[in-house]
Amino acid sequence: MSSKPISVLITGANRGLGLEMVKQMVETQGPLTPVSVLFACCRDPGGPRAEGLQALAKKHPDIIKIMCMDAADPKSIKQAAQQVASVVGKSGLNIIINNAAIAIRSPFFESTPEEMQNCFNINAIGPMVITQEFISLLRAAAKDSGTPGMSCRKAAVINISTIASSNGLANETYNKWRVLPYRVSKAAMNMMSVCASVELQKDEILCMMLHPGWVRTDLGGPEGELDTHESVEGMFRVMNSLTEKHCGALLNWKGETVPW
Amino acid sequence: MSSKPISVLITGANRGLGLEMVKQMVETQGPLTPVSVLFACCRDPGGPRAEGLQALAKKHPDIIKIMCMDAADPKSIKQAAQQVASVVGKSGLNIIINNAAIAIRSPFFESTPEEMQNCFNINAIGPMVITQEFISLLRAAAKDSGTPGMSCRKAAVINISTIASSNGLANETYNKWRVLPYRVSKAAMNMMSVCASVELQKDEILCMMLHPGWVRTDLGGPEGELDTHESVEGMFRVMNSLTEKHCGALLNWKGETVPW
Ligand SMILES: NC(=O)c1ccc[n+]([C@@H]2O[C@H](COP(=O)([O-])OP(=O)(O)OC[C@H]3O[C@@H](n4cnc5c(N)ncnc54)[C@H](OP(=O)(O)O)[C@@H]3O)[C@@H](O)[C@H]2O)c1
Ligand SMILES: NC(=O)c1ccc[n+]([C@@H]2O[C@H](COP(=O)([O-])OP(=O)(O)OC[C@H]3O[C@@H](n4cnc5c(N)ncnc54)[C@H](OP(=O)(O)O)[C@@H]3O)[C@@H](O)[C@H]2O)c1
Repeated sequence: MSSKPISVLITGANRGLGLEMVKQMVETQGPLTPVSVLFACCRDPGGPRAEGLQALAKKHPDIIKIMCMDAADPKSIKQAAQQVASVVGKSGLNIIINNAAIAIRSPFFESTPEEMQNCFNINAIGPMVITQEFISLLRAAAKDSGTPGMSCRKAAVINISTIASSNGLANETYNKWRVLPYRVSKAAMNMMSVCASVELQKDEILCMMLHPGWVRTDLGGPEGELDTHESVEGMFRVMNSLTEKHCGALLNWKGETVPW
Repeated sequence: MSSKPISVLITGANRGLGLEMVKQMVETQGPLTPVSVLFACCRDPGGPRAEGLQALAKKHPDIIKIMCMDAADPKSIKQAAQQVASVVGKSGLNIIINNAAIAIRSPFFESTPEEMQNCFNINAIGPMVITQEFISLLRAAAKDSGTPGMSCRKAAVINISTIASSNGLANETYNKWRVLPYRVSKAAMNMMSVCASVELQKDEILCMMLHPGWVRTDLGGPEGELDTHESVEGMFRVMNSLTEKHCGALLNWKGETVPW
């Protein structure tokens, strides 16, 4: 039985894990395919950092729609939501993957208020505003699905978090990754997501967090333990297995719980 | 055997829990007394909200020093640190209690970026900058103490957190306290504190978090389960029992662990 195609929005889709997500959704048969339309968001669609995405979109013009969206700019999020609404209509949007993030890596004593604010704006407030602005499209998808319970094929917000957001592990991991603004912004995003998950479940929209593993990207660096292909393959498998039991959970790319 | 008097700094000392902490430190014989000097910080020392503190300071002019400090203003923090340094000299500062906070109570869908930023600035960035600016005075106190290990009588940063910062409990408690900016700012403060605790322990300075209970103050409201007297008495008892085992811990006023 082939599944009904789903609509997906991915932020930070021009490089790293975001670009690999786009690739696997349009070029492979995976747990989350087929995709009817994929909104690939980035903050500079015409710039050099989006060349790989542009090339991919040229190969799949019917599926990939490149959108301009800056996670730190609520106006650009509102505009993107309007554009997406005009494309998807009544069937709404099935999945939002809040993947865009920056890593500001200062240790505790060198972190400045400005670094803390920048990281918080993009990594925590960005996904909040995106969820707020796209809520009617998620609700439409949940209604349109006609299936009970919760799942990514119905309606879901997946926020990409990190093991570095874990208070319980920070005592061991802080000296390895002395990145205060990044850790704090992701811990903030976790709490935002848990609260969002309680609101969203009223409409049978699933909201949870995924840790992609330590991955070789610009952000993860060359010493990462996984390549983007493995990480995204794992995350998509986990996403496909999610149900209402996973509301507000933080899982890694293998589906294991990450302690808060 | 009477203990060596300690020096203490409390933020948000003009009302609520902060004012009660000042009271118990100067007017009762408790686990953390005697206090040699108590820096009672508030953002408007001459204003009507500081009248209770002013009256108390008049009664105990040798101990209580009222300081102007706005947790959202790094310049005022730097100035306060210079003033404190000139008072305590080589013996340094034994305890900082980061108690000042605001509660912005919007639910998820009504929370704005500005509310999130304001709450984050005061509740998370404030304690970070205070710890950074006062670090040399804490180090001086740790050296001066001449005792091994860690304790509040030696050198400590106590960050007042809340049970509402717990991801693990938010699923149950969010509908009771739909206060997104506050929750997110305190979850952010927790991660900041855990990271700080790893840095500070190198100098034998203890850093941990306390949840005061649900207390009848302007912030807690009239339905709170405790009065300020019980809450502060409990927190001081817990503070007095802390050792290096509690670095980066989140405990409540009874000394019980609050899940992350
Ligand atoms: N790689 C790892 O080991 C690892 C581990 C744990 C968690 N993560 C998480 O995984 C996600 C993806 O990371 P990655 O490794 O793929 O990082 P990356 O290669 O650095 O890519 C980051 C992406 O986010 C975008 N972005 C940054 N700020 C933005 C903004 N204000 N508005 C819109 N887009 C913005 C970037 O766009 P530009 O090209 O315009 O900068 C880029 O597309 C992040 O949430 C990260 O925290 C990664
Ligand atoms: N009460 C509870 O049930 C409860 C529960 C959990 C945690 N807590 C925590 O306990 C701590 C004390 O709360 P409370 O109940 O005593 O609250 P409160 O009665 O509202 O007092 C808050 C204090 O913080 C000060 N403050 C706010 N913003 C400030 C800033 N930018 N700079 C300096 N001072 C600032 C206030 O000064 P102004 O007079 O100038 O506004 C006031 O002194 C807070 O950290 C709170 O989150 C309280």
